[in-house]
Amino acid sequence: MKFVRFSVNSKISKGIIEQQSIKEVRGDIFAEWEYTGGEYLTKEVKFLAPLEPNQIIGIGANYVSKVEERPATLPDIPVFFFKPTSSVIGTDDQIVIPGEIEQVKFESELAVVIGKKAKKIKESEVFDYVFGYTVANDVTAPQYFHEAGQWTIGKAFDTFTPLGPVIETKLDPSEIRVKARVNDIEKQNSGTELLIVPIREMISYLSNVMTLMPGDVILTGSPLGAELIGAGDVIECEIKEIGTLKNSLVNVKGSVTTS
Amino acid sequence: MKFVRFSVNSKISKGIIEQQSIKEVRGDIFAEWEYTGGEYLTKEVKFLAPLEPNQIIGIGANYVSKVEERPATLPDIPVFFFKPTSSVIGTDDQIVIPGEIEQVKFESELAVVIGKKAKKIKESEVFDYVFGYTVANDVTAPQYFHEAGQWTIGKAFDTFTPLGPVIETKLDPSEIRVKARVNDIEKQNSGTELLIVPIREMISYLSNVMTLMPGDVILTGSPLGAELIGAGDVIECEIKEIGTLKNSLVNVKGSVTTS
Repeated sequence: MKFVRFSVNSKISKGIIEQQSIKEVRGDIFAEWEYTGGEYLTKEVKFLAPLEPNQIIGIGANYVSKVEERPATLPDIPVFFFKPTSSVIGTDDQIVIPGEIEQVKFESELAVVIGKKAKKIKESEVFDYVFGYTVANDVTAPQYFHEAGQWTIGKAFDTFTPLGPVIETKLDPSEIRVKARVNDIEKQNSGTELLIVPIREMISYLSNVMTLMPGDVILTGSPLGAELIGAGDVIECEIKEIGTLKNSLVNVKGSVTTS
Repeated sequence: MKFVRFSVNSKISKGIIEQQSIKEVRGDIFAEWEYTGGEYLTKEVKFLAPLEPNQIIGIGANYVSKVEERPATLPDIPVFFFKPTSSVIGTDDQIVIPGEIEQVKFESELAVVIGKKAKKIKESEVFDYVFGYTVANDVTAPQYFHEAGQWTIGKAFDTFTPLGPVIETKLDPSEIRVKARVNDIEKQNSGTELLIVPIREMISYLSNVMTLMPGDVILTGSPLGAELIGAGDVIECEIKEIGTLKNSLVNVKGSVTTS
């Protein structure tokens, strides 16, 4: 099923896409929900990010360019980072470049949506705790990385985490391709067999550190090919089985330094 | 006012401490709330973390040992990091040391609780957006820091963010002392005049990056004196005007690496 959030006439709703229409639902998509009887055409609604995440966790540098380059042993401590939930936007929303810089990096990613509380789960159990999958753009301003290595600020700006267009609950994440196009030119196109830390290992590891909760979103890393782009560019992140997450970029004046 | 969360007979409530009793309240402490008429003695309840944070943001290495050591200019990009909300515990709860290691670091800190949505606020306006203050222990396992500089995992374990015992809404944060004692021996005791990035600058900067929300908790950094401690130790973090956050440490068996 393809879960969405959307607005019509300023009212925010949830629903499930069936062909060209959205059947409205109410309740908690991770627990109990029911159809309201409302139905909309997909073309008459504005799509929002398909969920309001509880937390957003990302993993760094997690793709190789060829299967033969996958390391024989996994890293002891993968590079994880958090992004604030305030950074989430939906498809067709604008990515705002901070005033002091001219460009930001796009990173098209498969995002896993956790559906059940998960603490110390085995790799073999991981998919029992996954609700579904969406597409993420882990927008990044490396200009704000701290020289000591922390990426926090460079990934935290408002609008830096486009998610969508839907959460697909039926998907085999081991056999999909993660793509990105800038102004219609393909920049990323890799299969998830190139993940260094695969999804099972990633989520099992995280669940051994922290209790994962329904609505936690895990960004699984971006393939080779991410680039800096600027105002006026249009970035489309696509996973065919989920959909296309499309955002244009704008620049704003203003400084983020203390003054 | 001193806001608390507490449980009595497995029921979780909120309230305000007045002398030796807690007057129960209901509603959203950041918006509208009212007294329920319920009243409990402080000694008959179990104190919980005084809020369920929306997000937790920390700042690294933010104290000097003497006022004369404060840098003439503030860093362009302070070292910020996020901690997961799943890491929160209350006073008297146990800090669980991950199975692969023997010790963790305590870090006693003043924590700021945001009360209103804050986007691009000026330094002079910061305190209009602060709901109150609590004590935090930013428990850290530096053994899990990534060699490339990311602290994420080392600060993310369940139980690694004790908060409490109360949120004090009436406090001048510029004139308080942040203390820690291990097994009754004082280890930290510094005034907030030793902060490198002061609270106004810290929160104004953050609000220029990301929209801060009610319930966001900002850990303002820990004074000199943090140390590694182990199972059986008792750590008390204290800010006299707020109270004492007391936790003992236990160790668990088990590995967090993928297997």
